[in-house]
Amino acid sequence: MSGGGHLKRVRALHQRKFREAEGLFLVQGRKMVQELLASQLEVLELHATEEVSRLLGLTDALIAPAHDLERMGTFAHGNEVVAVVRKPVPSSLRLPSAGRFVLAVDDVSDPGNLGTLLRIADWFGAEQLWCSMESVEVWNPKCVQASMGSLFRVAVVPTDLSSALLKANEGNVHIYKAEASGADVFTVELVRPAVLVMGSESHGLSKGVLDSPGTSIAIPAFGGAESLNVSAAAAALCMEFVRQGR
Amino acid sequence: MSGGGHLKRVRALHQRKFREAEGLFLVQGRKMVQELLASQLEVLELHATEEVSRLLGLTDALIAPAHDLERMGTFAHGNEVVAVVRKPVPSSLRLPSAGRFVLAVDDVSDPGNLGTLLRIADWFGAEQLWCSMESVEVWNPKCVQASMGSLFRVAVVPTDLSSALLKANEGNVHIYKAEASGADVFTVELVRPAVLVMGSESHGLSKGVLDSPGTSIAIPAFGGAESLNVSAAAAALCMEFVRQGR
Repeated sequence: MSGGGHLKRVRALHQRKFREAEGLFLVQGRKMVQELLASQLEVLELHATEEVSRLLGLTDALIAPAHDLERMGTFAHGNEVVAVVRKPVPSSLRLPSAGRFVLAVDDVSDPGNLGTLLRIADWFGAEQLWCSMESVEVWNPKCVQASMGSLFRVAVVPTDLSSALLKANEGNVHIYKAEASGADVFTVELVRPAVLVMGSESHGLSKGVLDSPGTSIAIPAFGGAESLNVSAAAAALCMEFVRQGR
Repeated sequence: MSGGGHLKRVRALHQRKFREAEGLFLVQGRKMVQELLASQLEVLELHATEEVSRLLGLTDALIAPAHDLERMGTFAHGNEVVAVVRKPVPSSLRLPSAGRFVLAVDDVSDPGNLGTLLRIADWFGAEQLWCSMESVEVWNPKCVQASMGSLFRVAVVPTDLSSALLKANEGNVHIYKAEASGADVFTVELVRPAVLVMGSESHGLSKGVLDSPGTSIAIPAFGGAESLNVSAAAAALCMEFVRQGR
């Protein structure tokens, strides 16, 4: 049985400072835990209700009463399985290989957006997700959840984005920056290997990125909306990216 | 000054049943309220802090202390301006006109997703957003917020989606249904006028929609993700839609 000590330690991981001090993070919910167990990540503890433990065949789970799990998890309600997981060794920055691309995000502050961007990067086959040092922490439970398992497949590399773009440019990687004033993407030849850079939700691209080499591209607008949210814009641009790459 | 009576009435509109009984909904936050005031909608009451009222030039605002506004709004914190607005007369279903398209959503249950879909529909120039009767209510504060003003521009039509698709088919409107097992969208000629139908977050398309006429289309996958979230998928498909329509 999971005791009160577990509860306290797990709950501490709701907070970034304890995730950083311990090098641990939480994975929650049936689907995510199943994806976790199929991954290479090291699971330190698995807490589940008796029912979920039986349903998912979690032979190593520490059985906890529903009301304890409710407090261990970060969901508003319905917490039934929570895993304590060791953060993987950070991947180092790697330039995209021939024919491939990397998605880069500049100061994304909403963890749900970052998770959704990871899922998009995974779907469209991006090799890595680069994010500026100011971006939200990828181990935030909301990011983990929104990534729907893509966090276990796509390496997230926190990096100084301007320096990374300079390096990419020197390595003959093409750089495309999403910017409202950019060229209509349908008129631009998108060449790989490439980096596609998305700005933050509210401030767009940072000065360092704007001053970096690269081509500014925009999604043409057909209606009255002032902007798209960052994940919708990323999905739309990745779509054109893969279309041209076929 | 707004008094305690205001507070209670405004707070009631956090709940769907009171929004339905009163035919009212809430619009919150500086940006949304500015978009609201530029729209045709009827604003019954505008509650704001003295500071925001001055900054936005809201001469008709009822000034309320910050702690009252904090309780009037639905944001976790930072509520500073809340408008009570009459719901517009529901738009009736209209088939898309020549060269145009409609976005349709089948049982979307998350209000944030519905709002984001509205913003995407607006950006890409969809004429209406049709949503199945089981979809989440568009006047939900989270949907209003996520729409970022697109709610004031794109008509949302709750409708029996199967019947609407039959009607569209009889009216020689092309129907495209997003489905994992559909044809690679890059190999499909997307012809307008058209309806693009997106399924729900967790269950995809309902049986009634699957049995309706139309072509099933899919976004090709290049990585390991099992799916895209509904708004990322809608943005990607709208992108290809507008590309082919140019």
